[in-house]
Amino acid sequence: MRCISAQKLRQIGEKMFLVCGVPRNEAALVAAELTEASLMGLDSHGAIRIPQYVEAIRRGEIAPGAEIQIIRETPSIAVVDCGWNFGIVGANRILEIAEDKARAQDISCATSRRAHHVGRLGAYVQKLAQRGMVALAVANGARSGHWVTPWGGREGRLATNPLAFGAPTSGNPLVLDMSTSMIAEGKIRLLAQQGKRVPEGCILDAQGCPTTDPNAFYGPPMGAILPFGGTLGYKGFGLSLMVEILGSTLSGMSVTPDGASNEYLNGFTIIAIRPEAFSDRFVENMDALCAYITSCPPREENGKVVMPGYYDFAMRRKRLEEGIPIAEGTWESLRLTAESLKLEI
Amino acid sequence: MRCISAQKLRQIGEKMFLVCGVPRNEAALVAAELTEASLMGLDSHGAIRIPQYVEAIRRGEIAPGAEIQIIRETPSIAVVDCGWNFGIVGANRILEIAEDKARAQDISCATSRRAHHVGRLGAYVQKLAQRGMVALAVANGARSGHWVTPWGGREGRLATNPLAFGAPTSGNPLVLDMSTSMIAEGKIRLLAQQGKRVPEGCILDAQGCPTTDPNAFYGPPMGAILPFGGTLGYKGFGLSLMVEILGSTLSGMSVTPDGASNEYLNGFTIIAIRPEAFSDRFVENMDALCAYITSCPPREENGKVVMPGYYDFAMRRKRLEEGIPIAEGTWESLRLTAESLKLEI
Repeated sequence: MRCISAQKLRQIGEKMFLVCGVPRNEAALVAAELTEASLMGLDSHGAIRIPQYVEAIRRGEIAPGAEIQIIRETPSIAVVDCGWNFGIVGANRILEIAEDKARAQDISCATSRRAHHVGRLGAYVQKLAQRGMVALAVANGARSGHWVTPWGGREGRLATNPLAFGAPTSGNPLVLDMSTSMIAEGKIRLLAQQGKRVPEGCILDAQGCPTTDPNAFYGPPMGAILPFGGTLGYKGFGLSLMVEILGSTLSGMSVTPDGASNEYLNGFTIIAIRPEAFSDRFVENMDALCAYITSCPPREENGKVVMPGYYDFAMRRKRLEEGIPIAEGTWESLRLTAESLKLEI
Repeated sequence: MRCISAQKLRQIGEKMFLVCGVPRNEAALVAAELTEASLMGLDSHGAIRIPQYVEAIRRGEIAPGAEIQIIRETPSIAVVDCGWNFGIVGANRILEIAEDKARAQDISCATSRRAHHVGRLGAYVQKLAQRGMVALAVANGARSGHWVTPWGGREGRLATNPLAFGAPTSGNPLVLDMSTSMIAEGKIRLLAQQGKRVPEGCILDAQGCPTTDPNAFYGPPMGAILPFGGTLGYKGFGLSLMVEILGSTLSGMSVTPDGASNEYLNGFTIIAIRPEAFSDRFVENMDALCAYITSCPPREENGKVVMPGYYDFAMRRKRLEEGIPIAEGTWESLRLTAESLKLEI
């Protein structure tokens, strides 16, 4: 495990993207966002994605510099074709569109077409919350990642379909960022590699029987991941459908096989709300809510009741000071990518 | 257990409310909505509420005929003072306001002040979905019902904070209606009365230890209900906060003790979206999504994968035909209320 500064990680990403022909502003944005995720401890959405995105550019799946176009618009809503540019570039543009519209109309909704991987979903609601807005964001996933089974089923029909919610306070904003499944497929893969078991209640084998064996999940035949919620998994299933509908059906996409619609990677949608339209003391009341919630005595002696996002912001402070730990495998992957681009890192 | 027709139940409710001085249109609306809930099998929000609402009118907690006033408004949003009229009357008015605004602006948000119990939350998104709209509704609860502890805590700070989501299809709409807690307090009370245990993973005793003993929950000192999600309960906690913020903080209310704000019963908020603004084939794509999801083979041999709301609509058909079963306790309560109002039922 080595430790590198945020600045260094951002430079590595930026340099690599530039060499791949990515426009300077896009290279800077994507590198900065991935670095932010790493800073906040969300390593699955940080440094590890740099080699993946480089690979996706090479395969023609990401089209750097592609124009982000509004293809349908009214004063309050927009459908935005991201043209297979980086999902992060597309989603940040969608965010701006939603923010502008919400500032004018008090509430807005903007949704994507042809968006690649948008990265950390919480980043978008966090940005809006830091600019004083309440926001809900969702991202559904491509059919190839439909590992999650509907409630009562035993075959994948949904992605891990995360949702994020953010609201401003006078300090760090509240940022909820959660998948609607019991576990990520990437985590099962890691456990399989390590010869470990999956926690109980997360996966099914191909016959629909609960299992903790990651190999029984991969089969073939393939098993499935359960929707979030344990014995109340119908709730996670319902939330996953909400993400699917807001993220994809709303933008005019269908999950049925009809060409292009199957290739998209993230159906990203954001709803932005201007709280001042409703209340003159929103932030003040948010602070009161946070104080009330965190006044709850903890279950464990050294525990602490915190608002969603608290530990991510704490990690950010720590890693800004101490540097970002990069796992050896991730570093090796960065090194190989650099080598292939004739760069030194 | 007796069985009565929907018409009969509606008449019982209407007659009782009329005798209590409720305006005819409000009596009809509330009786009809409670009957709908009973028809759909959601008995906790049906017939059983008629005597409760009569009692609330007598105690002055519900103010029948009170004006529902928009106290803050822009073309896309509204804050609506329900003046302690029936929550059902207030929320239905808020629904109309949200619908009108969404028809004009494509997306809207309307929120309540001083709303009494709004009844079945799913009813509101269902109505909008039946009129072609996508809708998200939330309802938070008064401090006196803050049984649910934040993640990592051991004292109540939140109500069971339900959320509901609805979307149209060419058949019955998709209707998700879920609380964000592991169990309802009413259910724990029932189990205590029956001398039964609470399922594992739902409640804590006052020391923050998991228990299945309903009496350990009631104490004193009081324990707490866990947020929905089992080992991933931080997600249920986050969703509960989203309900709290959208349902109450947005409308200008605070959970801290400041007089009137503590008396309200439901902070009700609805976001309505006109899908045609985004897509010309939304319903068609919803149908394709439903077909794709329900094509999933079931886990159990005689099982079935269905969309949220499916069983409620099936129950409605059955009870319309066969009548609504009314538990003896509920019937006795209706009979006593009728007697006190000098009515025959």
